Order: sequence, then structure tokens, then C-alpha cells
Amino acid sequence: MSRLDSFIRRLQAQRACIDRAIGLVGGIDGPVFELGLGNGRTYDHLRENCIGREIFVFERKVAAHPDCIPDAKHLFEGALKETLEAALPRFQGQVALVHADLGSGRRAQDAKVSAFVAERLARLLAGGAVVASDQDVGWPGAEKLALPPEVGAGRYFLYRMA
Amino acid sequence: MSRLDSFIRRLQAQRACIDRAIGLVGGIDGPVFELGLGNGRTYDHLRENCIGREIFVFERKVAAHPDCIPDAKHLFEGALKETLEAALPRFQGQVALVHADLGSGRRAQDAKVSAFVAERLARLLAGGAVVASDQDVGWPGAEKLALPPEVGAGRYFLYRMA
Repeated sequence: MSRLDSFIRRLQAQRACIDRAIGLVGGIDGPVFELGLGNGRTYDHLRENCIGREIFVFERKVAAHPDCIPDAKHLFEGALKETLEAALPRFQGQVALVHADLGSGRRAQDAKVSAFVAERLARLLAGGAVVASDQDVGWPGAEKLALPPEVGAGRYFLYRMA
Repeated sequence: MSRLDSFIRRLQAQRACIDRAIGLVGGIDGPVFELGLGNGRTYDHLRENCIGREIFVFERKVAAHPDCIPDAKHLFEGALKETLEAALPRFQGQVALVHADLGSGRRAQDAKVSAFVAERLARLLAGGAVVASDQDVGWPGAEKLALPPEVGAGRYFLYRMA
């Protein structure tokens, strides 16, 4: 499989997991968190498919397409360690859907970030909320959900809050 | 359609056109030209699927994944206007397959580059050679080929040398 094949599969897996997550939280009130804005493609996808929900974006340093940058009220720019921590009191137990695309390719660094995120997710999520993530951000008590059939094991992760 | 949807479609179109082009030149001797290396994903795809053919890459400034950079004999780094022009005497009438991914999103600039490339293609290509391109690089006398069924009109271009 070429890098082009692999990249297409990864994007398809990402979209399939985000779409699955959106479907699963249809009956749950609450905002969406996008952890990692990147070029803004998945933010745009969430925006198009979560009509009526507020989407809050956390990004270390914004470098997205100008059309894919949220307004200042919905953007938390800076180190995730600080921005996500700061968001806790306001959003505790309320977030319905989280998409996280935080992988850097450096395993030790990614494991540290995932552990930090997992611990905050456990406090941020509403009951029944769903997380789609490129990293394994499972927290104690998280329900690991089956992936859509076209997604290879380990390519993406889906978790639900009890 | 979100930007994520659109990006996936573009990559699928690109792969479908490259694969179609590779199939069409199966009986034609000659090297492959990759115009624009980018991150190296399509170069890797060509390399995996054109076993036994030399692939020459033209790139203004190499910034690809380290595993996707050709050796010095197969890399022409610098402005396409100079590198492609310089390659003409050596490769005239010999190139079997060209993949070009040169779009910058600036229409006037892209039209200029496409016209320059089209004129050189007419001199570089072997009889029956095929070009897959994100820009319309049709030269006088080029046979415009039908796109694979899953590729929307204008997303990619396929041409054959008479």
C-alpha cells in the first residue's frame, strides 16, 4: 500500500468515525469540542454536520484555511494543557461530542498528551457523549465502541461516556 | 460537501487517474516524470506501481517525507522553467508517463505554468504516453481521455500523446 493509499484510508476512517459519533449523540444536548484544528478540514466537516451545536476549537497555534477558523468566542488558542484545563469549570459534564486529532507521530509525546486528554474527558463529557480520536484517549470507565466496518483496528478510536 | 469530503474526493480522483494512466502505458517503454513532489505521497504511489521504470522528479524545493525523496540522479530541484527545459535534450520523445500536481490555487499563475508545461510535454512524450494532471496541460494535438467514472469533470485531467 502506497503512502497515497494509506493517507486516503486514514481520511476515510476519520470521516467515518466522526460521522458515526455525530449520529450517536443526536439525542444528547451539548457543545462539540474539536481538539486540534490543523488545516480546518474536520472542523468544517463538524460545522456542516452538527447544525445548531456550538463548536469550540482548541489549537496550539492556528494555521488553518481562513474560511475554517472559528470566531474568537469559540477558539481557545494555546497549549492544550492550559486551554483544556481552563475550560473545565465552564464545560464540566456538558460536552456531547469530542473529535481529537492530536497525533504528532512521536509515540512518547502522543502517549503523554492522550493521558492528559483522557483525564479531562472524563470530567468534561455529558452522559452518553462520544469521542472520536486518532489517539487512544480511553479513560477509566469509558465504553470502547466498535469502529465502522471500513475502519481498520487502531486507525481511529471511538469511546462513549457511561 | 465539507472540505474533508472534498479533499478525500480530490485524493481519490488523483489516485484513480494515476492508476488509469499507469495501466494505459503498460506497453510503452520510457521513464516516468513526476512534476511536483510535495509531501511525496504520489511519488511513493508511482514508485510502488511502476516497478522497473525510472522515475524522475521535478520539484522547486524539496520538503517531502524523508522516505519519499528520490536519489540525486532522479531529482531535479529548482524552478520548473529551468529544470524541465534543461531535461528536454536528454528525454525528448522518450517519456512514457507524466504525473503533474502543480496547482497553487492562484489561477493566473497556474495558467502560466500549465501553458509552459504543455509546450514541453509535446516534445518530451513518447507516442502513446499518458499525462495525469491536476491542471489542464493539454497541448495542441493531445488526445483528451475520458476520466475514470468516479472522477468529477475538471477535478483531474488525462491526456494521451498521438
